[in-house]
Amino acid sequence: MPKAKDLEARLDRADKQVRLYQTISRMLIRPGHLAETTQAIVRLVAEFIGSDSCLLYLVSRGELVLCAAEGPNPRAVGEVRLRLDEGLTGWVARERRLLAISREAYQDPRFKFFRDLPEDTFESFLSAPIIVGDRVVGVINTQHRHAHAHSGDEMEMITTVGEQIGCLIAMAFVIPEEFANADYAELGLAGRVGAGGR
Amino acid sequence: MPKAKDLEARLDRADKQVRLYQTISRMLIRPGHLAETTQAIVRLVAEFIGSDSCLLYLVSRGELVLCAAEGPNPRAVGEVRLRLDEGLTGWVARERRLLAISREAYQDPRFKFFRDLPEDTFESFLSAPIIVGDRVVGVINTQHRHAHAHSGDEMEMITTVGEQIGCLIAMAFVIPEEFANADYAELGLAGRVGAGGR
Repeated sequence: MPKAKDLEARLDRADKQVRLYQTISRMLIRPGHLAETTQAIVRLVAEFIGSDSCLLYLVSRGELVLCAAEGPNPRAVGEVRLRLDEGLTGWVARERRLLAISREAYQDPRFKFFRDLPEDTFESFLSAPIIVGDRVVGVINTQHRHAHAHSGDEMEMITTVGEQIGCLIAMAFVIPEEFANADYAELGLAGRVGAGGR
Repeated sequence: MPKAKDLEARLDRADKQVRLYQTISRMLIRPGHLAETTQAIVRLVAEFIGSDSCLLYLVSRGELVLCAAEGPNPRAVGEVRLRLDEGLTGWVARERRLLAISREAYQDPRFKFFRDLPEDTFESFLSAPIIVGDRVVGVINTQHRHAHAHSGDEMEMITTVGEQIGCLIAMAFVIPEEFANADYAELGLAGRVGAGGR
């Protein structure tokens, strides 16, 4: 590829990444419905990465529950549950590590097959834990139907979006009445402790 | 400038912006001291934009209090206070609007001079409100000693970093014990209301 063309393509990717973070950042601080916001985020991630699905699992009493889904089976939201010792997703939550598999993800011994998730026949899998402070709150996955080698940018993107979702979830614990009349400067100067053990 | 050189410069800026958002995003969800985190953020912003100062004001009982400062006078933190009807910073908080002045900011009729802030003789001023839900939580400013025309990227950057700081402040209201043992999936599916009226 000629150099200018290559640079143009890289600039286009970087600009898209900037806009993705900005768009999600805006969602975090604007009033909105949590389920709608997470659904909008998985849609943006699938679009950015060009994947065939993007799934968000959140932790509920030692299990991972599918809470937002972009892809072939949106009806599985609220239905699919995984134990933390099950599947690639459980592994990511347990090990607190990013996982990128470029092909034959379903051959991985950690894999768990769901009859109700067509994503489970897909080749490529990218997954990041969602961690706030020292708590694993959930896992975000993207899947490509066909083999796909993930770039470093894509791995960083899923990590950062996972962090943004972590903020979104943590912020849902803030009591609006308590927040509305607070002394933010006192807090900022003293450094009170919050969700992140701050 | 030859096309490839121009593209390289733009790519470099976009990559830096991506890294800035990622670095701050990581700070939000990791345990840390709030005052140290805001100080690290204003340092990163000043470095990114190449400004001579970056100041973070947070709201306290109808006033704006300087809570983090990168620049010539870090000792003013916790000391400088502005009413919401004073100065360019007060205007930004009151109007909830971005303000970019490329030269002679001190000539602006909205300007207020502080003897204890050398920044107030600076030419160029870029400022964004920090808003969470419908609350103005603070204002973030960058200042250049000499005239500086702000790019669209720089305006977007300060807006997004302001949103990230908004998340940081809101998350400090989360009670760690309440957060640690919660059912995140229940929350994510039901869409409970949080700081952003979520």
